[in-house]
Amino acid sequence: MEGDRNPQHPDVHTLTLQQVLEALVDPVRRSIVTRLHEARTDLKCGSFDLPVGKSTATHHFRILREAGLIRQYYAGTARMNALRYAEIDEVFPGLLGAVIAADRAASSRLAPA
Amino acid sequence: MEGDRNPQHPDVHTLTLQQVLEALVDPVRRSIVTRLHEARTDLKCGSFDLPVGKSTATHHFRILREAGLIRQYYAGTARMNALRYAEIDEVFPGLLGAVIAADRAASSRLAPA
Repeated sequence: MEGDRNPQHPDVHTLTLQQVLEALVDPVRRSIVTRLHEARTDLKCGSFDLPVGKSTATHHFRILREAGLIRQYYAGTARMNALRYAEIDEVFPGLLGAVIAADRAASSRLAPA
Repeated sequence: MEGDRNPQHPDVHTLTLQQVLEALVDPVRRSIVTRLHEARTDLKCGSFDLPVGKSTATHHFRILREAGLIRQYYAGTARMNALRYAEIDEVFPGLLGAVIAADRAASSRLAPA
């Protein structure tokens, strides 16, 4: 599946709250979502500074993709990631925004002044 | 601890998003939160129709209490549960409302017409 250049993406209307929360409960996955939202642009997998190895990172990106939170596509040889914010917000209004805001608030409390 | 008639409750300002999401990711715990919100009143532990045994239910109530989501107190011999909605919403704005709304929407889709 990792070699598939056109990974499958679920229709957000088929997602359950359970799937989305299970994706967001992991702090590494949540940091990917928050970073994508802050960047306001699509980012390639290699541009995230994650505290895990490459295969674990790939696993986290796949979970996010299967939970409908990100869309992955290729630009040349780089696998790009887009946050599906508007689509998720349509199905679970306010959820992603509240989680991202709380995650950013927590990060700013932890960051050195 | 279960015999303690005055269980400890965390100050919501000491809670992490991680704790709150870990509490809410469990569907039984989420159903307790949603039920308390719908009831608009405090409810005793025995009044929840949960698909788990009594000791597991007690465990779920404790996780919710430790995550700051509910306040527990005794009224006579009944252990009562109050949703700490306003307090949680102050620290994680919009989060609990979004989760409850999504949970209720999911329940209404599953319920027979």
